[in-house]
Amino acid sequence: MIEFENLTSVYGGICAAKGFTAGSVRAGIKESSEKDDLAMIYCVKPCTAAAVYTTNVVKGAPIAVTKNHLKDGKAQAVIVNSGNANTCNANGVEIAELMCSLTAENLRIKKEDVIVASTGVIGQQLLPEPFEKHIPLLAESLNEVGSTDACRAIMTTDTRIKEFAFEFELGDKLCRIGGISKGSGMINPDMATLLVFITTDAAVSSPMLLRALRDANEISYNRINIDGDTSTNDMAAIMASGLAGNEEITNEDEDYEIFFNALCAVMLNLARETARDGEGATKLIECAVFNAPSENAAALISRAVISSSLVKAAVFAADANWGRILCAAGYSGAEFDPHKVSVKILSENGSVSVCENGVGTSYSEEEAHDVLSADEITIVIDLNEQDSELNQSIAWGCDLTYDYVKINAEYRT
Amino acid sequence: MIEFENLTSVYGGICAAKGFTAGSVRAGIKESSEKDDLAMIYCVKPCTAAAVYTTNVVKGAPIAVTKNHLKDGKAQAVIVNSGNANTCNANGVEIAELMCSLTAENLRIKKEDVIVASTGVIGQQLLPEPFEKHIPLLAESLNEVGSTDACRAIMTTDTRIKEFAFEFELGDKLCRIGGISKGSGMINPDMATLLVFITTDAAVSSPMLLRALRDANEISYNRINIDGDTSTNDMAAIMASGLAGNEEITNEDEDYEIFFNALCAVMLNLARETARDGEGATKLIECAVFNAPSENAAALISRAVISSSLVKAAVFAADANWGRILCAAGYSGAEFDPHKVSVKILSENGSVSVCENGVGTSYSEEEAHDVLSADEITIVIDLNEQDSELNQSIAWGCDLTYDYVKINAEYRT
Repeated sequence: MIEFENLTSVYGGICAAKGFTAGSVRAGIKESSEKDDLAMIYCVKPCTAAAVYTTNVVKGAPIAVTKNHLKDGKAQAVIVNSGNANTCNANGVEIAELMCSLTAENLRIKKEDVIVASTGVIGQQLLPEPFEKHIPLLAESLNEVGSTDACRAIMTTDTRIKEFAFEFELGDKLCRIGGISKGSGMINPDMATLLVFITTDAAVSSPMLLRALRDANEISYNRINIDGDTSTNDMAAIMASGLAGNEEITNEDEDYEIFFNALCAVMLNLARETARDGEGATKLIECAVFNAPSENAAALISRAVISSSLVKAAVFAADANWGRILCAAGYSGAEFDPHKVSVKILSENGSVSVCENGVGTSYSEEEAHDVLSADEITIVIDLNEQDSELNQSIAWGCDLTYDYVKINAEYRT
Repeated sequence: MIEFENLTSVYGGICAAKGFTAGSVRAGIKESSEKDDLAMIYCVKPCTAAAVYTTNVVKGAPIAVTKNHLKDGKAQAVIVNSGNANTCNANGVEIAELMCSLTAENLRIKKEDVIVASTGVIGQQLLPEPFEKHIPLLAESLNEVGSTDACRAIMTTDTRIKEFAFEFELGDKLCRIGGISKGSGMINPDMATLLVFITTDAAVSSPMLLRALRDANEISYNRINIDGDTSTNDMAAIMASGLAGNEEITNEDEDYEIFFNALCAVMLNLARETARDGEGATKLIECAVFNAPSENAAALISRAVISSSLVKAAVFAADANWGRILCAAGYSGAEFDPHKVSVKILSENGSVSVCENGVGTSYSEEEAHDVLSADEITIVIDLNEQDSELNQSIAWGCDLTYDYVKINAEYRT
């Protein structure tokens, strides 16, 4: 976990903040699966809310429905299924609307206050029966320790629960923020590339929620990559109940900064765990770029390095093939002087400098192999273009393994 | 092979055209390798010449030297090694210059008329000895049937010889054009992404050679992708001896069109074979996009689809997971109406329509599996945005397999 100042990690995920309950049920959406596949999140009162969505031109039906429902910046519940993306289906919007109306009816809230999301295979018909039968039971089963169940229910090829919550202070009020996330394939920077649900009891206006979500997304989910594919269904949504009792945040004041810091803590940690849980991954790869000609150049390079299939395969083999790192930096689209570049590789096993001023050092391959054999690898690229460590960026990815191919060759069957 | 009108396929590769000889030798550049690793191409007279290069910011030393030598649009020989990219080495330019001067000396030509290229691992020191010892022998061994040997010597992880030659007529003169190519990893559209050497006996001015090479590259090598990595060392070079005796082509007249057509035949076929020979590939994937809102949209979509790891893994498994195809089109950067899209999959085993108007058809999964089990798969995407089949693009790629990971995890070791 990345630690943040003035924040305490707490249990409870999306149920850590006041007012929220969650739960899950096995609705049998994907017949072959034996795990829960339908999750619900609920707040005792209507919340301010905001969401960011996939940039893919092909969008799932739930995206259209949620966008419509969030026009007024309010929400009170989330309904989300795994096992079927409800995308490129003739009856897609109809089913997404049905999920919302069943949720609203059973929770006795407004249909327009329901956020709906789906994840799974694209282009397979989704039937109404599983929802008609199971949403009433699900609505009754919501509870204050349901975060982990909800997280598990929205997982597809994920192998780890991604759940974080933190406590922070706004004035004399104790506030909490927590989130869950799913996604381990079809993951690429450029917006919310998976499902992320965040709840807080801080009072924040919906315009400020949206601004904070966008900015935090930019340095978290937009800095991870597993396979370069941006999904059709991705969404990051946040709901704020205001039950902590702080004065509502309505502009970028000091309270906003404190809240933003807490939101970043949730999203950065969720995004980092998502990279670690990339399909087939055995290692988390972190690429930190410093002293770049511009902040954008740093972001481009860090993202290109963690996205390179060749770098990812080399890390899988614990091979310090730094030429591939330089190569990826070179085609990232960033302008820089290759003759000034230094590259170091770090892990809990030590550190090794593999390239200085654009030329390989006489490092020991055994030592490098040892450094690269850890579970978390950091690649540090110093472009030496500036005196300070400004113009920096960090991105996260994972290694490319036989299992990535296996998982994606066999996903539907 | 893609057939072209008014062209006859002939044997001989880069030695098919009048005036050219080629050969190879085992110089021991990569000690562990037992295959030839140094190739030379020579013309009995100075040629007009042109080249296009990698767009990577990090460029191999041979690129700099070749660019300098081709400033006058003339060349008479090519020297190229595999096993070491001569990139990010302290003595890189020195070694590349040495390769040229040894070649020039032994062929009794001008050093500035030598094109030099290297391919292999980045950042490993290249010593002068292998060149000093073997270039003299290589220069003496050049012969008129040396094309295939030269092609084999520049191969790294390639498993197939990529060599084509065609005969065509300019006025009453019979002309020939032929090429060889290597590359099967670190392959991504955006310029010459590997080594390509083309020879012709047609007389073409060097500015027209460059124009033809750039335009042909755009619809051939810029339409293939294996792993999204653009190498540091890529180069496509062409030399024209003029020995066919035609009137020199100096502008875009009818003769230029005939010549351009022949050049496209060589480059398209080489590029397509390169995609088929992608590291670990078992299948060639062709994506043809029609009736797009613009030609650029068609190119973006065709390239995104053949570049998608998820599409590639699905094709490996012969799984008609067309949602991934639509998803890739959706994040390609092209604007289009998802509700108008049709997708068909074709092969020698038949054809199956999997998506119409953005919605899945009720196709048979067994039939689709059968179509996808062939060695060459064509994905046809009709965006139905236009009445004609204008605004179209074809791109080529390969499937993603366990062997891609294996090859790239073990390449250096």
